[in-house]
Amino acid sequence: MPSKLKEYTSKINEYIDSASLVKDPKELYLPVDYCLGNGGKRVRPLMALLACDMFDGNIEEVLGPAVGMEIFHNFTLMHDDIMDQAPLRRGKPSVYKKWNANTAILSGDVMFALAIQHIAKSPEKHLKKILDLFNRSVIEVCEGQQYDMNFETLDKVSEADYINMIRLKTAVLPAACLKSGAIIAGASELEAGMLYSFGENVGIAFQIMDDWLDIFGDEETFGKKTGGDIVANKKTWLYIKAFEMANEYQLRDLRNSFTNRIYNPEEKISIVKNIYLELKLNELALNKMEDYNKKALDFLSKIEVADEKKEDLITLAEDLIHRKI
Amino acid sequence: MPSKLKEYTSKINEYIDSASLVKDPKELYLPVDYCLGNGGKRVRPLMALLACDMFDGNIEEVLGPAVGMEIFHNFTLMHDDIMDQAPLRRGKPSVYKKWNANTAILSGDVMFALAIQHIAKSPEKHLKKILDLFNRSVIEVCEGQQYDMNFETLDKVSEADYINMIRLKTAVLPAACLKSGAIIAGASELEAGMLYSFGENVGIAFQIMDDWLDIFGDEETFGKKTGGDIVANKKTWLYIKAFEMANEYQLRDLRNSFTNRIYNPEEKISIVKNIYLELKLNELALNKMEDYNKKALDFLSKIEVADEKKEDLITLAEDLIHRKI
Repeated sequence: MPSKLKEYTSKINEYIDSASLVKDPKELYLPVDYCLGNGGKRVRPLMALLACDMFDGNIEEVLGPAVGMEIFHNFTLMHDDIMDQAPLRRGKPSVYKKWNANTAILSGDVMFALAIQHIAKSPEKHLKKILDLFNRSVIEVCEGQQYDMNFETLDKVSEADYINMIRLKTAVLPAACLKSGAIIAGASELEAGMLYSFGENVGIAFQIMDDWLDIFGDEETFGKKTGGDIVANKKTWLYIKAFEMANEYQLRDLRNSFTNRIYNPEEKISIVKNIYLELKLNELALNKMEDYNKKALDFLSKIEVADEKKEDLITLAEDLIHRKI
Repeated sequence: MPSKLKEYTSKINEYIDSASLVKDPKELYLPVDYCLGNGGKRVRPLMALLACDMFDGNIEEVLGPAVGMEIFHNFTLMHDDIMDQAPLRRGKPSVYKKWNANTAILSGDVMFALAIQHIAKSPEKHLKKILDLFNRSVIEVCEGQQYDMNFETLDKVSEADYINMIRLKTAVLPAACLKSGAIIAGASELEAGMLYSFGENVGIAFQIMDDWLDIFGDEETFGKKTGGDIVANKKTWLYIKAFEMANEYQLRDLRNSFTNRIYNPEEKISIVKNIYLELKLNELALNKMEDYNKKALDFLSKIEVADEKKEDLITLAEDLIHRKI
């Protein structure tokens, strides 16, 4: 069976293009258009379409809510960039930077409303279910962002708390997209739930890989300098495990690196990276990531549809985790 | 028939109290609780309940969406206060001031999601209609806020543009509340539409009265100094009409007042207020307000239900416009 990834991505982009209209007041809608037109791999809506296809559903019925969730995702990025004072998003100035914070707040708010407008295009008999799923996910994404901000000022974060944070902040939305596609295709509650769990575990694996790449990734392939998380004192999986596993000498060096200002960035990255390597955290992180990947695939394997129906979803998850897309 | 205003207000407050839970992460939910607990007259949900009652609907069915719209309204205040850098809200520190902008952004966002969660409690057969009505209103409220911000930097704003701005920013949400109550009670599209128009006109009348009170209101009754809009160079109905009607001498004084920094606030208020009085704008504004009030009542009178069924709504609108509540 030929891959539908390309075809569905085009479908999603066409839908987004046709839904976008820069009407008055332009000051409100231009930043929305800028944000939605700023690329992105459309992974979340793609998941919704593939899930629908897996259960032989009608793709057209799922396009609205799928794009709604993509718009919501972009809304969270617009507001996150204000909170993080992030000047760049996908290599271009963030809305916050290109315009200002007030614009990013208000254009973000209207994007949230536009997202629900597309969610509301779900087939009416499934609307209540999709809307409840969406709302729960939105609330969880906000909770995840709050935990992430809380972690910045905490001395110690447990691995369990970290995994829960990335589950909320990163994993529940793709999971909800998959489940939406399954629901609209008429899958059973059990099957839709399996797909949700698949998505949740893929999302967690993705984030651990993200932490790994930030320090062990290839600078040329990824086009950015490694070690940004270390410089920013970000509490990643590697950071948390390092503090958990370090001996007293390593602990002293870690503490000095993450609290003192005496090291220059290069020195700090080099010291912390060495400790990560001494503790074999480069391998342990990959193992951890593979654990979640395997868990994800286990959930998928329990769904009783033909294997070829799952191929595109497996490819997408694989490419996503290993960053081929 | 005894007034139901008090009974329904209690019902709404009970529902809000029971729906509020300060769970983890507390940093996210405490500001939500603070904002929703900070009083307010619950005018919007009250309108939804009274509209439902007017058509002999089941009040319990409308409580969810009514409170959803109240939560949404409070969310807009939370974000507006960041944009306007407003330190106070209903006499207490705004969330933006008490915590910080990031908190007001993220706790605001989760309030939006909570609002939809309550909207989703609409009876399932009306859900699609209520959700579409809510989404359209949310988008319009954002547009209104954008126009209001745009006006700050414009030299000239027409009366029509001003009325449209306050319609969007202030009037469509109460109108949508009224229409929701009517829809859930099973009113016809025509009747629900009449109630919407009633609400829209009450909202516009309310805002013109607001502009009037800011300069001609009694300082003792309203507990705040008059003239704040003049000092802030706010483009109110009075401002716009003054520029439209002024002779060349008045125009020169208006221009000097609103562009120059040479007047102290008291002097500026006194000069502008005098011009308003010379142009009889104090009376014209009240006439304008009464025009919208009359229009509102005309729409209400066309709805074919017994007059006593409309009494509470008329009282509410009357108290609202003339600021007895």
